Amino acid sequence: MPFINVKTNVPVGSDKEKAIKSALGRDITALPGKTENWLMVGLEPECHLWFKGTDEPAALVDVSVYGGADADAYRALTGKVSALLAEELGLKPDRIYVKYSSTPDWGWNGDNF
Amino acid sequence: MPFINVKTNVPVGSDKEKAIKSALGRDITALPGKTENWLMVGLEPECHLWFKGTDEPAALVDVSVYGGADADAYRALTGKVSALLAEELGLKPDRIYVKYSSTPDWGWNGDNF
Amino acid sequence: MPFINVKTNVPVGSDKEKAIKSALGRDITALPGKTENWLMVGLEPECHLWFKGTDEPAALVDVSVYGGADADAYRALTGKVSALLAEELGLKPDRIYVKYSSTPDWGWNGDNF
Repeated sequence: MPFINVKTNVPVGSDKEKAIKSALGRDITALPGKTENWLMVGLEPECHLWFKGTDEPAALVDVSVYGGADADAYRALTGKVSALLAEELGLKPDRIYVKYSSTPDWGWNGDNF
Repeated sequence: MPFINVKTNVPVGSDKEKAIKSALGRDITALPGKTENWLMVGLEPECHLWFKGTDEPAALVDVSVYGGADADAYRALTGKVSALLAEELGLKPDRIYVKYSSTPDWGWNGDNF
Repeated sequence: MPFINVKTNVPVGSDKEKAIKSALGRDITALPGKTENWLMVGLEPECHLWFKGTDEPAALVDVSVYGGADADAYRALTGKVSALLAEELGLKPDRIYVKYSSTPDWGWNGDNF
């Protein structure tokens, strides 16, 4: 029950979008017990986004996790996601934030886990 | 002081949008002490959203609550919101996530509660 | 390592956007240890947003902070951000929410802090 939302200020073609969502489906296994089978992915290209005061290419990746995971797992996911956005979109890792939040309250199929 | 943001990958006509925001104004009373009078609603139609690796119709509903509520209240809200999106947008409840977060720090009218 | 995302239902011209992101770079110093040097800003104009059941001009400001800050600092930031959006976009402060969340897990440059 994770949700990964990617905001970036660069354009993302349809092929790139599919490549990114599929790679995230593999990368999410860095969090124990999480797989693409329960992953929702959002992509927001061409956002109005600034980092350090400039609108040079950048991304904000927001990872929401039901129940949470430990710090090392999050760290591993940051590495994978940053490498992915560098490869697919040419973003510099030092222009990418990956922030995490966990919650005990998460609904699916009309009920909460 | 709740905020409900709905991201979906299907189009939502203007009439449907109004119906959804009005229904959410009623549904929010599932959380004790919350009413439309303090509710902000965001709708993001035609998002780039994938669930379980596919872009079949889906939605991510993000509910932020000042101070929080108990698990049973959240569970009741999930049921109402899922039924609403099924009715108005034809989404299957097993393609809808409703995630909750609470915070003690919330500003309105230039000051925090 | 803060991220400030501003959703509003009014249009925001390019000049206004730059003015807002620059002012947020100054305002963020209301949180101890935070500067524009580590600030990411997102702006989403012309959102579909309702408050108290109406789509009159409004804004939802989402402030995410690595490690968090104390309640007084958040309160100060709410005052500054509300005044900024009133001045630049003509929004009434009683139509602006500023919500805060903190997290211990935040990635940058391929690794977590």
